Parts: sequence; C-alpha cells; structure tokens
Amino acid sequence: LSKDWRKRARERLNNLAIPIGSLGRMLDLAEQLAAIKETLQPSVKKKAIVTMAGDHGVVEEGVSTCPQEVTPQMVYNFVAGGAGINVLAEVAGAEVTVVDMGVAQDFEDLVAQGKILSHKVDYGTGNMVKGPAMTREQAVQSLEAGVNIAAGLVREGVELLGTGDMGIGNTTPSSAIFAAFTGRQVWQVTGRGTGISEQVLEHKIQVIEKALQVNKPDPNDPLDVLAKVGGFEIGGIAGVILGAAYYKVPVVVDGFISTAGALLAQRIAPQAVDYMIAGHCSMEYPHQMMLEELGLSSVLSMNMRLGEGTGAALAMCIIEGAAAVIGKMMTFEECGVARNKSKEYVQ
Amino acid sequence: LSKDWRKRARERLNNLAIPIGSLGRMLDLAEQLAAIKETLQPSVKKKAIVTMAGDHGVVEEGVSTCPQEVTPQMVYNFVAGGAGINVLAEVAGAEVTVVDMGVAQDFEDLVAQGKILSHKVDYGTGNMVKGPAMTREQAVQSLEAGVNIAAGLVREGVELLGTGDMGIGNTTPSSAIFAAFTGRQVWQVTGRGTGISEQVLEHKIQVIEKALQVNKPDPNDPLDVLAKVGGFEIGGIAGVILGAAYYKVPVVVDGFISTAGALLAQRIAPQAVDYMIAGHCSMEYPHQMMLEELGLSSVLSMNMRLGEGTGAALAMCIIEGAAAVIGKMMTFEECGVARNKSKEYVQ
Repeated sequence: LSKDWRKRARERLNNLAIPIGSLGRMLDLAEQLAAIKETLQPSVKKKAIVTMAGDHGVVEEGVSTCPQEVTPQMVYNFVAGGAGINVLAEVAGAEVTVVDMGVAQDFEDLVAQGKILSHKVDYGTGNMVKGPAMTREQAVQSLEAGVNIAAGLVREGVELLGTGDMGIGNTTPSSAIFAAFTGRQVWQVTGRGTGISEQVLEHKIQVIEKALQVNKPDPNDPLDVLAKVGGFEIGGIAGVILGAAYYKVPVVVDGFISTAGALLAQRIAPQAVDYMIAGHCSMEYPHQMMLEELGLSSVLSMNMRLGEGTGAALAMCIIEGAAAVIGKMMTFEECGVARNKSKEYVQ
Repeated sequence: LSKDWRKRARERLNNLAIPIGSLGRMLDLAEQLAAIKETLQPSVKKKAIVTMAGDHGVVEEGVSTCPQEVTPQMVYNFVAGGAGINVLAEVAGAEVTVVDMGVAQDFEDLVAQGKILSHKVDYGTGNMVKGPAMTREQAVQSLEAGVNIAAGLVREGVELLGTGDMGIGNTTPSSAIFAAFTGRQVWQVTGRGTGISEQVLEHKIQVIEKALQVNKPDPNDPLDVLAKVGGFEIGGIAGVILGAAYYKVPVVVDGFISTAGALLAQRIAPQAVDYMIAGHCSMEYPHQMMLEELGLSSVLSMNMRLGEGTGAALAMCIIEGAAAVIGKMMTFEECGVARNKSKEYVQ
C-alpha cells in the first residue's frame, strides 16, 4: 500500500474535529480504505459477497455433524433468500454471488437461470486421508476461478468485496491448511465446527494428522498445500482475495474457512494482506490464532460460527462507516471548532 | 419483558437452518427485539439518535482539555452535518435529533429554523464542587424533557432509538454518578475523557471526591444523585431511555455518558434495562464496569471514546441484522435443509 496515502489519510484523520484518536479502530479502517483506494474519499457503497460452495471427500471419515447433502440444500436456500447470508447482506446493501466451486451435485437449473455461477472443479474433493484432495491443476483452476470472479465484480463497479463459504466438512481442510503452513500441532488448530462432540473432535484431530502424514504438503509451496489438504471453495476464496488485491479493492474476510483462504492468498502474495479486513472473530477457536498469524485484528466479535460470509456482511456497515469518517467528517478548520489540547492515548 | 415472547423467539431461532447457536450474540439480540416488540418479525427500520447537549459548571475546575465553547461549536457542527454522529447515523439510516438541554449559550437561530430542539433547563449546571449541579425541580425537568422527546419520536414511528451526548466536562458528572450509586472509589471510576494528562486526571479525581463530600447525594434517591452531581444532558438521556422503555421501543445506549444516564434510568425503573442495548464499549475505562453494573454486554468494541451517539449509530446496523435474522431467515422446515445433530456449545 502507498505509504504516502497512508500518511495523507492519517493527517486528515488527526485533524478531524474530535479528541485525537477518539474514533479508535474506525480511524485505522479509514486509513486502510484511503490507502487502498488512493483517495481521501474512498467509496465502499457498492458491495458484493462471494459465497463459494464445495464438498469434501473427507466427510466420509465422519468429521461433521451434518450429512453432505446439506451443502447443495444450502445452495438452494441461498437462492431462495432464506439463509443468514441473504438477510445480513441485504442489511449491509451487498449483493450475494453464489458459486458452485465443487459441490457433489449439479445445479443445471440454478446455473441456467443465472442464479448461481458454476466454476465446478469436480464433484467434491478426494478424501485427503487417502491421498491428495485434488490435483495441482485443480488447485490452480480453483484459484483462477476466484480471481476471475473478483475481476468480473470489480468490472461491474463493486467497491468492497467479501468472502463466504459453504461446504459440509470444510473446517477440517481449513485446520489442515493452518497446521501445514505453520507447523502447529493439529489439536491446537482444530475446533468443533458445526458443533461436534468432544469424542468426534478427537477423531477429527486424528483424521487431520493422518492426512498431513499421508500427503506431506510442502509449507513453502502454497499450491501444494491447497492441492493436498485444501478444498475447491477454499482455493476459490483465496483467488477472490488475490483478485481483490490485484484490482486494489478491499476484501472483507469472513470466518475460519475464509481465513484459511486468506492464509493461502498471503502465502502466494504476502502483500495481499494489506487489502484484507477481518470481518469478525469466529467462535471456531483457532480462528483468532489464524488472524494473528496474518497480523489481522477483527472488526466484530459476536460469537458467531456460521460462515456463508455472514461475519463479512455484518462488518460491511462498520467499514462503510469508516469510509464516511474520512470522506465526510469535517476537520477543526472546516467546521470552526476550537482545537483542544488532548493527546492520543491507549488504556 | 414477556417471558412468553422470549420463549417463542428462542424456539424459532433454535429452528433456523443453521448449526444451533451459530449466530451467537445475534440470536440474543434477535430474542430481545422480538420480546420487546412482541412479534417474531420485529422491525427496527425507522431509527433515531437523540444527541443531547449540556454544559457543566465543574469545568471551571479545569477537568477537561477542551474549552467550554466547544459544546456550542459542536452543536453547530451537528447541524452542518460534519460531525461523527452525522456521518455514522447516515450509514445506519438513522435521523439525528439534536437537543439543547442546557448549553451555556442560546441557539435562537437553530431553534427558529427547526434544526435543533430546545429543552434548555439552564445555562449550564452549577459547579458541583460548590453545591448541587441543579435543583431537584431541574432534575425532574431534564428527565421529563427526555421522556417527551422519546414519546414524540415514537409517535412519528421510530422503531429503534439511540442516545448520544455532547458536553465539555461531562465525563466528570458521569463518574460522579457512578461513584454515588455504587460506593466505588472515585479513582476506580474516573477516566481520561477527551485525553487529559495523568496530572489532570489526579486533579479530576479530587474534584469528584470533593463534589461527593460537599453534596452527599443519596444513592437510594436517583433524583438526588442527578440533581447534586449530574448534568442536564445526562438527565435528558435517562429520560429518553425511560420513555423508550415505557413505549416498548429498544434503545441503543452509546458510551460512558449515555451509560451514566442508563444507570439513572435503571435506578428509577429497574425494568428499563430490558429495553437497553449497549452499542459499544468505550475506551473510557470505567465504561466496561458500568455496563457490568447494568448487566449489559456491548455489541461493539472499537476503542472509540467520542460520544455524540457514534457508538450507538454504529451498532444500529448490527441490530437491524439481528431483526432480519429472526424476521427473515428460514427454519429447517421452511427451506427443506436436513436437520443436523449439532449441539450448542460455548468455548
């Protein structure tokens, strides 16, 4: 990001007719938006959430409370408008683009009607306990799909992107990706997903450990990590984030699965982090650790753990507020308020 | 609040097509909104923030970094639309009503043009180090003004209220009110306001201790506390909250000063707490303690400490999201998604 624009933004923010620093994290968001968009009046009015769906061969190991058919059922729910992401995106004024990245079922009807995009890489990944989740070519294909979707939305004028996921079992590859890149112990980075019991959690940890042993993903090769222990929607999300960074559009990263995509994006292009905003901190407990790994601090902390892009959508109103803080508030000079002698401070 | 409506709301929320509990605090907000409005489709579309301004005789003791004339200057800034509350309320879709509760200056022009409401009780409170901040009659008058303003907004169809404040020096009476009601040591409940130095903070603590010694407010008599160590805008805010509760409209409480008003409202009518939503947790460090005293947990935590209603405005989008969660999301039965076996859990 442009250091010059960061400086110009901070100068304006420090001159707003408020005690210095008193809008806290809103000022940091405002500075980031201004630096990304290289203007002191950044607009994030036109918003889009990309919700990527995919299935996971590893569910046959019994790592989720949900049957796999819930993935396509939820795709139909997204189209019907009754899911969390639909109602929260509406409040935020964001359009939702649902993408089939690799659900184990076809949606000819929805694709034909233009209700979802199909970038189907395959009918679900392979079971990573038995071999790689996908081929290296498929990993590239899933990333490229995400980049292209971001490009299309930017071309339509989208000024703020958000990511979301749907895929039964997808906390399992997300934890595997985190462990693969960082060498952390699997039990440290594995949570309870949709709400599995302690016993199933133990089993999930063993499944991930086995997948890492069998596949030996190379932490220095992000494509290898994605191919061996990733997922099509996770690759797609990483692609959306890379596309957002390429086109200089801020991207709100949702929860645990989206952040696994963000981690992939960061390992491919470290400067992509500058374009990311962590929408919320999920209840999936390793999420906080993953955000720290990326150097991100979340906008919201609402004890949510739903995915779909719900945390990203909810944060978009706050981010729009930050754009208004730098773009529309007046400085001491502009509004004729007496400058005070307050100093910035941290508790 | 109606236990029956709470139960009906929770039943629906537990049947939404999501892993049970996975929308976290959004579900608690949704339940509260449904119980307040006694419907499973609560609307909070029409929103208003009441920003109350008042001056404080105690500023002559040197407890703030800002000169007193900043209070009226900021009132003009609110009317010009360049303040934080203007731009954040706009993002939330909330109207801002600015009220002169007792600024040490007249605003004939603004009142005549209908740009602010005048419920001026006096030209600033008395210096509470030398005697009561106001008479008991003035305390009643400030509460009544708030109740009447809430009533007027509810009559206009407002479905979600928010509070805000402007008044140089008003963290001082807010800390005094907190100490007076709870018997906490003054140093425990006194923060740095707009950003005073350690040295001025020491002095501020002594000023509040002296005001409490001189006035001896009776903690069992909320009107006595308001009269002796309060402020006109703080009484007005308490009135807005009482009015909201009376008319069964949820009210978003802003930061430290608004929460001092909320504490007054709770001591007058304990059940008023059921109608309160804490918009954010302020950087003014005793704010968190004050929220705990009320049993409230804040929606946002953005390191803000500006007042004006900015934290309330920012939280309104989230609250609107919660209304949509209960009002618009589909249950498993409604959307035909397979019910999973997940259990609610807390990390």
